[in-house]
Amino acid sequence: MPDRIDINSDMGESFGAYKLGRDAEVMEYISSANIACGWHAGDPMVMEQTVRMAKERGVGVGAHPGYPDLLGFGRRRMDLSMTEIENYMLYQMGALHAFAKTYGLPLQHVKAHGALGNLAFVDLEVSKAIARAVLRFSKETIFVALTGTVMVQAAKEIGVRYVEEVYADRVYNPDGTLQSRKIPGSVIHDPEKAAQQALTILKEGHVIAHDGTKVKVKPETLCVHGDTPTAISILQKIREEFKKASIAVKPMGQ
Amino acid sequence: MPDRIDINSDMGESFGAYKLGRDAEVMEYISSANIACGWHAGDPMVMEQTVRMAKERGVGVGAHPGYPDLLGFGRRRMDLSMTEIENYMLYQMGALHAFAKTYGLPLQHVKAHGALGNLAFVDLEVSKAIARAVLRFSKETIFVALTGTVMVQAAKEIGVRYVEEVYADRVYNPDGTLQSRKIPGSVIHDPEKAAQQALTILKEGHVIAHDGTKVKVKPETLCVHGDTPTAISILQKIREEFKKASIAVKPMGQ
Amino acid sequence: MPDRIDINSDMGESFGAYKLGRDAEVMEYISSANIACGWHAGDPMVMEQTVRMAKERGVGVGAHPGYPDLLGFGRRRMDLSMTEIENYMLYQMGALHAFAKTYGLPLQHVKAHGALGNLAFVDLEVSKAIARAVLRFSKETIFVALTGTVMVQAAKEIGVRYVEEVYADRVYNPDGTLQSRKIPGSVIHDPEKAAQQALTILKEGHVIAHDGTKVKVKPETLCVHGDTPTAISILQKIREEFKKASIAVKPMGQ
Amino acid sequence: MPDRIDINSDMGESFGAYKLGRDAEVMEYISSANIACGWHAGDPMVMEQTVRMAKERGVGVGAHPGYPDLLGFGRRRMDLSMTEIENYMLYQMGALHAFAKTYGLPLQHVKAHGALGNLAFVDLEVSKAIARAVLRFSKETIFVALTGTVMVQAAKEIGVRYVEEVYADRVYNPDGTLQSRKIPGSVIHDPEKAAQQALTILKEGHVIAHDGTKVKVKPETLCVHGDTPTAISILQKIREEFKKASIAVKPMGQ
Repeated sequence: MPDRIDINSDMGESFGAYKLGRDAEVMEYISSANIACGWHAGDPMVMEQTVRMAKERGVGVGAHPGYPDLLGFGRRRMDLSMTEIENYMLYQMGALHAFAKTYGLPLQHVKAHGALGNLAFVDLEVSKAIARAVLRFSKETIFVALTGTVMVQAAKEIGVRYVEEVYADRVYNPDGTLQSRKIPGSVIHDPEKAAQQALTILKEGHVIAHDGTKVKVKPETLCVHGDTPTAISILQKIREEFKKASIAVKPMGQ
Repeated sequence: MPDRIDINSDMGESFGAYKLGRDAEVMEYISSANIACGWHAGDPMVMEQTVRMAKERGVGVGAHPGYPDLLGFGRRRMDLSMTEIENYMLYQMGALHAFAKTYGLPLQHVKAHGALGNLAFVDLEVSKAIARAVLRFSKETIFVALTGTVMVQAAKEIGVRYVEEVYADRVYNPDGTLQSRKIPGSVIHDPEKAAQQALTILKEGHVIAHDGTKVKVKPETLCVHGDTPTAISILQKIREEFKKASIAVKPMGQ
Repeated sequence: MPDRIDINSDMGESFGAYKLGRDAEVMEYISSANIACGWHAGDPMVMEQTVRMAKERGVGVGAHPGYPDLLGFGRRRMDLSMTEIENYMLYQMGALHAFAKTYGLPLQHVKAHGALGNLAFVDLEVSKAIARAVLRFSKETIFVALTGTVMVQAAKEIGVRYVEEVYADRVYNPDGTLQSRKIPGSVIHDPEKAAQQALTILKEGHVIAHDGTKVKVKPETLCVHGDTPTAISILQKIREEFKKASIAVKPMGQ
Repeated sequence: MPDRIDINSDMGESFGAYKLGRDAEVMEYISSANIACGWHAGDPMVMEQTVRMAKERGVGVGAHPGYPDLLGFGRRRMDLSMTEIENYMLYQMGALHAFAKTYGLPLQHVKAHGALGNLAFVDLEVSKAIARAVLRFSKETIFVALTGTVMVQAAKEIGVRYVEEVYADRVYNPDGTLQSRKIPGSVIHDPEKAAQQALTILKEGHVIAHDGTKVKVKPETLCVHGDTPTAISILQKIREEFKKASIAVKPMGQ
């Protein structure tokens, strides 16, 4: 059983007058922040504030780049070329990095957002395009790859630094992908259940899919969503259980 | 008389299917490129290509950040707060830097675009907000300040690295600002005239305003527009005259 | 004293995943809805839903067009030409009208939003550009003009159908314009106070500015904001007082 | 053989400072204009000018709505829901209609643009969503359906007014869809060849696909692209041939 783990969560998804999420609260419980970069969500003011909060709390700063689709919150697949994906990722990584840089922080990691992230789970070429962008940006920056998917293969082929990711609050398919949000119940709201899934993952090295299948996982970073009603309770419960189990929570880049 | 000068020009203002400018041709004659960052113009594909061209020709890569107004090409003043300006600049600088970084290049300089640039000529607080963004980004990155304007004062107050800029192809007001593009004849199209203005600036240390006033200038970088019909002829003529006068053309950052 | 009045409120300012306002609740108390048109806020899905709600409740449907500045929520002045303003208004009016049309409703009115609306209070040319757009669209569509400002003059000069507007929940300047939102206390949150201001306006034909000046007003439509914490209480209180005073609340177009 | 036909072409695809197409020239040869509505291309200034030109030349005004993807010029498929498509169409139709209305013109027709149009060729549900939007807008407005595709079936099922469309300058697949633009040679640049395809279509009632298959067509409107280098020559040649064959060219709505 690992004695440490990273907890990541999506942050900085407000936009102009529109407020979303409870970033200040969630930031207390996580070790890495996936910060929106102004394409599917977020804007420069929000990015600055979110990076500052992360800096103050010792949370690792990562980019959460998405499709150029604010109207759809990056949740609608777009038919982009691999070169477009690569350059769109670089653009967003750079934009966020500017804010990290002003606080003396590196761009710790990159985690693709929404429909682009979901596509990367199952499309090797897309995964490789994202991984290539991360490697071109920096050898130190970490590509977050959903464990058990082609993202891990892409990371290896491209030679980018990477960590494998598991989800505490999402229901798994037997093939290791996440069950679509469109299916009711695919997001786990019960803190006990989410904490239990997290513990099983760490202790047993597998997650139990919706049909009972044990899916082998390599938990290096654990994702918890900050935008569910019970997000704070889930995070508290997980931190409590990790403390009991002597599992330290640290940014993936350390 | 200086024995060297930088020539800068705006680049990378195409957007998606829309093509603008003759970047490949202009790039042959300049030493620094002001590259649009996707807000008033430009997109990640264009940025990648423009940075690559600059790299191939030894041209310095700079950001040309503007207002969030693609529809108005950044030429319409927007009533932004100083914090908004600062963060908007940082965002765009970072976005462009990502592409420079992949080619092993630093972000050499930053030159504010369009209506924002024009506002900076006359508004010290705006100039300082831009200068602050540049300094926060990097001590090495150069803030381009129109000679004789409050931009120079802002640069000194903020402590950012800067160069003073003169224009070869724009008519000057007696106060050292540029005559508005809305006034016919404010952009010089005659290669002889533009080259003569450039030479006078370098040899005499002043430019002659539209009313005959001699405006003192400190020519460290010379701007030539790439989007006028005679741009290439102007650039050729200037390079020819500079060669005769033994004035070397080198990127401002060297 | 008038025996009838219209109550208008801004509606449909959500955008994609971003929710704003309590439209369903507010819609119960008003007679005219100013619906965002996708530029400063709103999107086609939101517009469809908002128009449908208005239809169901017999509320008049109006356009609330603004600057092309979603990032700034239309609250930042942009330096547009009069032709740009006119065409931008027409575009947004048409977009909203499509939804009204599908529900068999006319475009009852147009009320300029945010910084554009504020500019119209004091800039006759801007007011005329907006009024011109409304008249070009339809002789039946009503231009909403803040009472006591140049908007009324513009309406008369252009010959557009118009009504004069007063605010229940905003503090007035002695010149009849609204005190800037940037000044604390310029939005009235106290239901008693707002209802009192509304009654004074209707009974006395004037509003009392922040310095005690009595500003003459012609109350044909009364604006109440839906996005303040006490909006519902304010609306309830106003409706209660109007009922006592036998003032009917009806859409401005009837 | 029909004694009349409509010729349609895409118009108004410039955006702000970006100019595209030769609208003024093309407008001389066509009878119906498909005008971009500001989403994939176009803006209110361009829309106003294009509608005015159409009015002056007696050309029918139609909407050319597309995906919300200016960066991709509407040429990249987006995974939208049917309700989103329907409302996005309505929005764009209404926006264009505002300009038509100011010139006393109806919205003659609607033709879906780019990747959305291509999807409609093969996806009945998408075709129906578009047809539904057209019908909701007006019983008079014509839905343009590529002959031989599910668009025709959709038009019939929904009960919208429609015409069947053929292409003069695109290579056909044996199933009646257009060969992808990504395949070299899929756009016909030779005026003789394009005019010949147009004549064959009208005289024989079929088009010859790239493999020699004769695809039955019902030519009610003929599309010619205005953005190819030989567009004007193609249009001239077609008009010449139609004149010889006594085929009148008239707006589809007449």
